Amino acid sequence: MLQGYTYPLSPRGEANLASAPPWNYAGDIVGVEFWTDPAAAEATLPEGLSPDPESSGRVVALFVDWQFSGQNNEYLDPVRSQYREFMVLVDARWKDQPVSWCPYIYVDNDLALARGWVQGFPKKLGAVAQTRVFAAPGSASPTLAAGGLFGASLSAAGRLLAEARVTLRQPASDPGGLLRPTVNLRHFPRLAVGEYDKPAVHELVMAEFLDQRLADVWTGSAELGLFAAPGEELADLAPVRTGTGFRASMSYTVTGVRRLEA
Amino acid sequence: MLQGYTYPLSPRGEANLASAPPWNYAGDIVGVEFWTDPAAAEATLPEGLSPDPESSGRVVALFVDWQFSGQNNEYLDPVRSQYREFMVLVDARWKDQPVSWCPYIYVDNDLALARGWVQGFPKKLGAVAQTRVFAAPGSASPTLAAGGLFGASLSAAGRLLAEARVTLRQPASDPGGLLRPTVNLRHFPRLAVGEYDKPAVHELVMAEFLDQRLADVWTGSAELGLFAAPGEELADLAPVRTGTGFRASMSYTVTGVRRLEA
Amino acid sequence: MLQGYTYPLSPRGEANLASAPPWNYAGDIVGVEFWTDPAAAEATLPEGLSPDPESSGRVVALFVDWQFSGQNNEYLDPVRSQYREFMVLVDARWKDQPVSWCPYIYVDNDLALARGWVQGFPKKLGAVAQTRVFAAPGSASPTLAAGGLFGASLSAAGRLLAEARVTLRQPASDPGGLLRPTVNLRHFPRLAVGEYDKPAVHELVMAEFLDQRLADVWTGSAELGLFAAPGEELADLAPVRTGTGFRASMSYTVTGVRRLEA
Amino acid sequence: MLQGYTYPLSPRGEANLASAPPWNYAGDIVGVEFWTDPAAAEATLPEGLSPDPESSGRVVALFVDWQFSGQNNEYLDPVRSQYREFMVLVDARWKDQPVSWCPYIYVDNDLALARGWVQGFPKKLGAVAQTRVFAAPGSASPTLAAGGLFGASLSAAGRLLAEARVTLRQPASDPGGLLRPTVNLRHFPRLAVGEYDKPAVHELVMAEFLDQRLADVWTGSAELGLFAAPGEELADLAPVRTGTGFRASMSYTVTGVRRLEA
Repeated sequence: MLQGYTYPLSPRGEANLASAPPWNYAGDIVGVEFWTDPAAAEATLPEGLSPDPESSGRVVALFVDWQFSGQNNEYLDPVRSQYREFMVLVDARWKDQPVSWCPYIYVDNDLALARGWVQGFPKKLGAVAQTRVFAAPGSASPTLAAGGLFGASLSAAGRLLAEARVTLRQPASDPGGLLRPTVNLRHFPRLAVGEYDKPAVHELVMAEFLDQRLADVWTGSAELGLFAAPGEELADLAPVRTGTGFRASMSYTVTGVRRLEA
Repeated sequence: MLQGYTYPLSPRGEANLASAPPWNYAGDIVGVEFWTDPAAAEATLPEGLSPDPESSGRVVALFVDWQFSGQNNEYLDPVRSQYREFMVLVDARWKDQPVSWCPYIYVDNDLALARGWVQGFPKKLGAVAQTRVFAAPGSASPTLAAGGLFGASLSAAGRLLAEARVTLRQPASDPGGLLRPTVNLRHFPRLAVGEYDKPAVHELVMAEFLDQRLADVWTGSAELGLFAAPGEELADLAPVRTGTGFRASMSYTVTGVRRLEA
Repeated sequence: MLQGYTYPLSPRGEANLASAPPWNYAGDIVGVEFWTDPAAAEATLPEGLSPDPESSGRVVALFVDWQFSGQNNEYLDPVRSQYREFMVLVDARWKDQPVSWCPYIYVDNDLALARGWVQGFPKKLGAVAQTRVFAAPGSASPTLAAGGLFGASLSAAGRLLAEARVTLRQPASDPGGLLRPTVNLRHFPRLAVGEYDKPAVHELVMAEFLDQRLADVWTGSAELGLFAAPGEELADLAPVRTGTGFRASMSYTVTGVRRLEA
Repeated sequence: MLQGYTYPLSPRGEANLASAPPWNYAGDIVGVEFWTDPAAAEATLPEGLSPDPESSGRVVALFVDWQFSGQNNEYLDPVRSQYREFMVLVDARWKDQPVSWCPYIYVDNDLALARGWVQGFPKKLGAVAQTRVFAAPGSASPTLAAGGLFGASLSAAGRLLAEARVTLRQPASDPGGLLRPTVNLRHFPRLAVGEYDKPAVHELVMAEFLDQRLADVWTGSAELGLFAAPGEELADLAPVRTGTGFRASMSYTVTGVRRLEA
């Protein structure tokens, strides 16, 4: 009897990219709120979601340095438990509820990719980086203070896809209502001839982030560029203007998703 | 209406890691046939497959330099279309048919990972390398001739998992019955609380490789080591003896898989 | 007239891997003090250094997450300014002065490699990782407190070369005299036939770290493994016992090295 | 007494990135001849070289898949012996001799970087890829025949720096006089304060490629783009028109360089 949760199933259940939850996360976020062409934002929405009439075209871009742990101090193996992520979250409505939708997301780690796919995050591989703060002061790092500068970028397949800069202005209790409940689309295709367009799994789910905690939240101003590349549609969401920039630490736990009835 | 085949679905259908087949492949293979403890081989088999009584414990390890193309000369974008792969294929029976089963497989490219998952190949990321032959002669490469030496290796998460050496002895018309029809397990978990052990997709399929062509096949002797690492069970299949080593070029096309009824 | 400091020199002086100092650094360090066979430690010393009779065989291993900046907020480009480093520092004497000597050092960034070579640090490429602390609490990261656990590792060419674990016990004002002045050997070979053994540059220098500042220093216990691999001699320094483990943040500036007269 | 040729010197002489020559190479080349603004080409030349009045502004861009070997079948360790390279070679004159000069070159391997620096090639790290040919026919690879299409690209620090396409037209005995003797500048800075602009090594040398052999040479037409990025000046050599494209295999041996007297 094979053991495990995701690929690969195995005799001892240790080879799988992801064992079953709980999945615990802690990370540092550089984020930029922006507005794109509302038609471009709406075009990314799956069936079941509609534009948010109060914030049509509003998107949040997040660059995150993550550390993962399951139930066995997996953070002690940083090669496998650390990863970097970029995502965009588009404002939408599920029925009457304001939600966000993630059309594009990139990570640099296959364990994170596997957990993401199961949650409905459509992860691809990318190289993500953000400026860090260090406790020892000096001119090699910004400080969490007004005027603090943070850069961040995303590349995939050797091409720059996104670049951001955030300038801190003031501490905040949270990133200002920037983060909403997230709806994902779990999707897994069929590969039998004639069934390519009849996916085996295709269902909206609500992400659930338990024990979500924020720390060291600062908001300010921001710049963001999204750049075109073959095999990518991220730049179709190019900013027409940016809103709040922010930098925060966040932690939470995932134990499951909740299926949304049509 | 979102377009595409795998994640991420998108307005124009260009962002997906893999569009629907046909998928065309060409590659160079360094392969090693070996025998492991039959109990270790059997322990990797999914429900529905049984050990092959005539070759219990027989496994083939393959290191492959691949190039992919769909229908648009994708090989002109080598960053995304080339990848390197390692896999082990365990002899098994499906009903009375001799088949092979792939418990562990590694690639260095997310497009290949996505196509693999849909086919039921449980791909993880790894770094794979093999000695190459070049048309210009000299002491920096072996030749396809008796005595030609080829090395190959697999690492994942910064740890060496497999290392092989093949010494060519004679040309062959094919790698000697080394390759069998391959049965895969398409698997995609549920993530609702309480349903972790009730996968949304869990089905045996037969891989179908169309227009399979071999060229420059040479067989000979081989050495192989499989090494233990955290989060891996590959080394549970450690060789007790090796059989034929080979080096070949291969091409084929995938248009789908065939579901196997229980 | 070509401009620049290191390779490549160029018309505008922007292409070089490293422009001339000042070079500013900030980083997080996971460190392990250990003792190896004194003969193994002594064998790594260049002419001009001798074993320290009071601490023969004593070595410190450092895993560092670095961020670099020159004079133009280079930390805003984290792809090029961040890097990870592993090094071992062997206790030695230069004349009567207690110093340390760095026989082996690895980084994951070519800008850091270039700056290192010029300083006399014999850098190779490697993949280095260490557990991080995040401001948002939870089970995905340790805290800077007694019992806090940190893992770290080094791989190169797909092989694990070093692995460490540190358990914090108490805060400290500094890592306990663990860090000494460092003597390096600047070395650049000749390549004319017959002159391979007559290097063009081969000179001992004293590293100078200005404005060195420490923060969040914690010491405790430690484990360390060093592992053999082809093309490496690091494991010849395998620990016979470990001493203090520590975790600290550090920053400093480099403006030059001081040549040591023979 | 420390052993070895380049960094790091060590007790057994096995840890160095490069041992002393001979260095043997075999590779596949995708190349594009092009013309840039003659002033841009001239601006890259070091003191001692002058523009070639007969081909001012002529440059050749090369993308190469290399395999290296010393005297011990190093090609059996492909992780360390294989690498990919991009370079541009600018037409120039040394005294009256037509030569080429390499202002910019990128590799993906530190052993290759170390050998390059010693030869005077100003190597940085980059990700280079080119379309491959495989012996097994099919639509996943071009063939060495009229109409065969090859793509190639260079990225560094996550940004696309160069992209080429070559269409084969006819076989050729060599790439048409495209390759000239190469003059390099060996350069190693001083780091003492006040001496940043007084390099310890700064000397023109003539590269010597022994037993140079070509095979499977095809020429044809070509496209090439060079793209701007921070910290790079390659795009200052942007093509105003392209000449011959080619694809070839090449092998040679390096035993030394010859110093050029001023």
